[in-house]
Amino acid sequence: MLSFESDYTEGAHPAIISRLSETNLEQTPGYGLDKYSESAKEKIKAAFALEGADVFFLVGGTQTNSTVIASMLRDYEGVIAVGTGHIGVHESGAVEYTGHKVLTLKDHEGKMDAGELEAYLKAFYADGTYEHMVIPGMVYISFPTEFGTIYSKEEMKAIHSVCQRYSIPLFVDGARLGYGLMSEANDIDVKEFASLCDVFYIGGTKVGALFGEAVVFCGGAPAHFFTTIKQHGALMAKGRLLGLQFDTLFTDGLYFKIARHADEMASRLKGIFLEKGYETFIDSPTNQQFFIMTRRRAAELHDKVRFEDWCPVDKDRIAVRFVTSWATPVGNVLALGNIL
Amino acid sequence: MLSFESDYTEGAHPAIISRLSETNLEQTPGYGLDKYSESAKEKIKAAFALEGADVFFLVGGTQTNSTVIASMLRDYEGVIAVGTGHIGVHESGAVEYTGHKVLTLKDHEGKMDAGELEAYLKAFYADGTYEHMVIPGMVYISFPTEFGTIYSKEEMKAIHSVCQRYSIPLFVDGARLGYGLMSEANDIDVKEFASLCDVFYIGGTKVGALFGEAVVFCGGAPAHFFTTIKQHGALMAKGRLLGLQFDTLFTDGLYFKIARHADEMASRLKGIFLEKGYETFIDSPTNQQFFIMTRRRAAELHDKVRFEDWCPVDKDRIAVRFVTSWATPVGNVLALGNIL
Amino acid sequence: MLSFESDYTEGAHPAIISRLSETNLEQTPGYGLDKYSESAKEKIKAAFALEGADVFFLVGGTQTNSTVIASMLRDYEGVIAVGTGHIGVHESGAVEYTGHKVLTLKDHEGKMDAGELEAYLKAFYADGTYEHMVIPGMVYISFPTEFGTIYSKEEMKAIHSVCQRYSIPLFVDGARLGYGLMSEANDIDVKEFASLCDVFYIGGTKVGALFGEAVVFCGGAPAHFFTTIKQHGALMAKGRLLGLQFDTLFTDGLYFKIARHADEMASRLKGIFLEKGYETFIDSPTNQQFFIMTRRRAAELHDKVRFEDWCPVDKDRIAVRFVTSWATPVGNVLALGNIL
Amino acid sequence: MLSFESDYTEGAHPAIISRLSETNLEQTPGYGLDKYSESAKEKIKAAFALEGADVFFLVGGTQTNSTVIASMLRDYEGVIAVGTGHIGVHESGAVEYTGHKVLTLKDHEGKMDAGELEAYLKAFYADGTYEHMVIPGMVYISFPTEFGTIYSKEEMKAIHSVCQRYSIPLFVDGARLGYGLMSEANDIDVKEFASLCDVFYIGGTKVGALFGEAVVFCGGAPAHFFTTIKQHGALMAKGRLLGLQFDTLFTDGLYFKIARHADEMASRLKGIFLEKGYETFIDSPTNQQFFIMTRRRAAELHDKVRFEDWCPVDKDRIAVRFVTSWATPVGNVLALGNIL
Repeated sequence: MLSFESDYTEGAHPAIISRLSETNLEQTPGYGLDKYSESAKEKIKAAFALEGADVFFLVGGTQTNSTVIASMLRDYEGVIAVGTGHIGVHESGAVEYTGHKVLTLKDHEGKMDAGELEAYLKAFYADGTYEHMVIPGMVYISFPTEFGTIYSKEEMKAIHSVCQRYSIPLFVDGARLGYGLMSEANDIDVKEFASLCDVFYIGGTKVGALFGEAVVFCGGAPAHFFTTIKQHGALMAKGRLLGLQFDTLFTDGLYFKIARHADEMASRLKGIFLEKGYETFIDSPTNQQFFIMTRRRAAELHDKVRFEDWCPVDKDRIAVRFVTSWATPVGNVLALGNIL
Repeated sequence: MLSFESDYTEGAHPAIISRLSETNLEQTPGYGLDKYSESAKEKIKAAFALEGADVFFLVGGTQTNSTVIASMLRDYEGVIAVGTGHIGVHESGAVEYTGHKVLTLKDHEGKMDAGELEAYLKAFYADGTYEHMVIPGMVYISFPTEFGTIYSKEEMKAIHSVCQRYSIPLFVDGARLGYGLMSEANDIDVKEFASLCDVFYIGGTKVGALFGEAVVFCGGAPAHFFTTIKQHGALMAKGRLLGLQFDTLFTDGLYFKIARHADEMASRLKGIFLEKGYETFIDSPTNQQFFIMTRRRAAELHDKVRFEDWCPVDKDRIAVRFVTSWATPVGNVLALGNIL
Repeated sequence: MLSFESDYTEGAHPAIISRLSETNLEQTPGYGLDKYSESAKEKIKAAFALEGADVFFLVGGTQTNSTVIASMLRDYEGVIAVGTGHIGVHESGAVEYTGHKVLTLKDHEGKMDAGELEAYLKAFYADGTYEHMVIPGMVYISFPTEFGTIYSKEEMKAIHSVCQRYSIPLFVDGARLGYGLMSEANDIDVKEFASLCDVFYIGGTKVGALFGEAVVFCGGAPAHFFTTIKQHGALMAKGRLLGLQFDTLFTDGLYFKIARHADEMASRLKGIFLEKGYETFIDSPTNQQFFIMTRRRAAELHDKVRFEDWCPVDKDRIAVRFVTSWATPVGNVLALGNIL
Repeated sequence: MLSFESDYTEGAHPAIISRLSETNLEQTPGYGLDKYSESAKEKIKAAFALEGADVFFLVGGTQTNSTVIASMLRDYEGVIAVGTGHIGVHESGAVEYTGHKVLTLKDHEGKMDAGELEAYLKAFYADGTYEHMVIPGMVYISFPTEFGTIYSKEEMKAIHSVCQRYSIPLFVDGARLGYGLMSEANDIDVKEFASLCDVFYIGGTKVGALFGEAVVFCGGAPAHFFTTIKQHGALMAKGRLLGLQFDTLFTDGLYFKIARHADEMASRLKGIFLEKGYETFIDSPTNQQFFIMTRRRAAELHDKVRFEDWCPVDKDRIAVRFVTSWATPVGNVLALGNIL
């Protein structure tokens, strides 16, 4: 059955499968100390125009979020995120499990507002009892957000500038980074993205890899981050599997090409929905698309295509999510058009 | 260069690579809810003659150890292990990071002694101040151990019986389980292994898979173990990658066949060393082999073959480790013979 | 200077000081195994008409909250509280530090609504992705709340009934329990209070003791709770100090008498404020009173009396808090009247 | 019955009880921001000749150890202690509960050997796999030790010097600090003690106070240590209770006078034991004394005097512990002599 359920339903880009196959019986050192990992790190630093950065490869998103956040916070600190942020909802309390509170701000279609962030920090330090509260030690945003929306360059700059004024790092969850950077609506150049935050990760799992997320500490990693990865159970014995995948994705811009394809498919899909008279729930410029339909219509469609019921809109209507990916054939989008 | 450095230097058994390739563009549900994972679980239960078991797939060994241990201990409990146990040494404090102490007993070539375990528990509860100490809540052993040694059926029974008397579960770290079960020295049948413990894991990373460990809760999993996996950052989005690998390994006994090959290679390798006049440091019947040589000889050999310096023996001599795996060609063993 | 700043500005009720002095050179066993602690536990069980309960004494409120909550939750569980709940705001993330998320509901003048609690739980389990989220494992409410308000018997029953339907314990933070139970507005008898929850604590620090909170597990304590207390650094070597204080407070109903006094003082204080034309911010029937005044008026008053600025109301006005306690002499209330 | 069971069987020095009584109805700010706490801190800094130090008051020893250790370690670090160190045995895993491993060295009558510490650290960093292990981040010693022994100035200097070479702080658990510093065998002046470590605490609970430990960060506290205390549930609402006690103890050298008394009583007690033909188990120069006696003799004595059976010596004999304190009347020591 046709599926637009998520961007992690397939395996990996065929080029990755080929290289895994070709190199399969090579013997390499473990734990990411192999030549493929080295090469991938260099390519990533080049792509993002980062010289002094440190790059590490982890396996999945929740793991990456909790490992990075714990590594940068002191015990008494928490991380600020909007209420819809992935770390606050769908990670089973992984951040709290490491001892840190997620401090929540209101979201605006999934996005944090720089002004509200500043107001929060100002009010926090103005409160005479703040030493009895969790000290804000990091800001977490997603690019794109859980609703597919993206920050403009000005918005990112504004948030980063607040962070810098309060000396707290800005961490960008880029589980779908490629889809954000390749969006037609995006005005941030790949080469300037890293200057707008302090640490981010480049999602592989949802953008062409079997699995894997590349963490980039723009100004260098926290001390002993390798040991931290191991302590979190996040260190792959055969680290080259991660290196090989990212090396492939960052050769000849493959990562960005396949991300753009997904965005294009999403754009066509949205066009079809609008043509058919559906309304968007959120106007997303990336690979996740949200529409409003009656519960009855959604129920009928579920027999013919896989997608996610997102949330109720009113008594009769719900929002639904359709997701494209690097692997979505144009034929599938057209086939969906015939069903709608 | 020839390498006997570890059993995780290569990729995966070719049958796994083929299936990953064949199924690459299939769309499946995420998080292990796919048909391959289901099938793999059934095959594992059949292989180990377990009906009521629950099977889960995780990515790596340290992750598996800390996730399983934390899921079965209450906050006030610790896990008993021998001092050389992997969880106490080379996992960067992953168990302590989840809040639990590793309570150490003396090892005997890597093994725990049932009598000493019982003496420990008896003395613990006889001590009037035991409520001020960490309550022992689990016993952890490795099969085979970090020194390649294995427990006899009688030894396992004796340990399990102590555990049962004190109502604490016995957890077996089977990172190299195949190599242990297929050893000529092993007297435990695969189908009775599960009756000798409460939870164990079947190592994939070191025995034919790209990565992956299959946790088997012999009598059913702790409540919400799925959520626990997610909370530990150990849940793969594309769970089928784990399912596919274990499904392949447990089809037609592949897992055991390739493990036996490694043991045979180890046995030949040992024969060669003994012939050449080397002495074993520990007499291991599995794929890790330990020999004594002079520091000078070891240094010379390092130019021709990769292996690990294990520990000092005396002023002039050290112990070294040579490891075979499912992927070791007999040619490599013979080539090593020519070098020695 | 006159102070209505909090209910922990003085030492202890004189009867406690006397007994500490009288018994000072007695030699008793440590860690709460003394006769005074035993006696205090029996008196508390009698006062609350609880036979099967287990009672433990801890030192302070935050410590008690985090120790009790951690002892009753499994790792994958969180505790539900309203956003203004003490555990979610002014405890420096002590609950998260033990690995658990505080799941927040909206408050109504500091109180949780049973209907909203039920709706939350229903929606939680109806969500297909709930296994990716923190499992609700406990409900936390304060009696009285951080705003001095109290639950009616019907309201408590309704919340408890929801908890029972979902098999999660109800924990009542009674840092100011005496002030709640002795309020004229309270319709819950001391002897039936325990039947409305699963675990609660009786605040001593704010109600007559130098320090100390008595935790009551209505149906028996979690296994090894003594060890849990020690592990949290919450076990007093000279446990009799806690026993003696609670034994004194629960002899001849002293705890309730002095709590009633504070409520009476609060009632007179409120009368004076209203007479002088001030408006209440929240209509509290216990020892914390909240009024609205202009910022200018508050600033003037701060020169003559100590009290807390609570929160802004609008551009010109703020809410302020005045607190009475077991130690407030009526003369202080009258003196305040002259100042207002 | 006569008791030499521990040094926390009585209440507090009478001067403390008097001051608690006198100041009982004063109103002071909470959380240690009162004048008594300020005064106590100044007196402590003067006594130990420390200008730049930060002093904090906590309630008990286990709490102090786990709070201080957690505040100074990063997540990936552990604390080195000898196997008999209090944090590794009788604190219910409080350190591990905060996520840190206790790395153990062999003890020598309770003491750490500087040479062995250095060898451990040297071997650690020489091991190619050290990044897979817990990074040593602090050294913990007790002064006096759990066996009553003390370090000489040279021994402390040697340990501190190793710590400095490896840039890790030295933390001294001074639960019985007074008894150590006032020992006739001690060659460390109070005013130079602080120069031999980085952080230590001055035990009050066992040396004259009802409760309380004064933490001294010789070169200033870690950032936000106040918040850390709160997060650990270790912040007293009525902080003046701690301030008052330490202010009393550090007025006119009371702390040291009463400690010296205990040491003198211990010395007389030891003399009597030796006269009667008993042998010491460990030759302690402080208030804890250890002797060897037959099991039968110990059993008889238990009917007449309280003391602790420490550990078995051989089939027939055990070691026993007799403890004096600031509160031990000379008459009790003489009475014991008549019983022996």
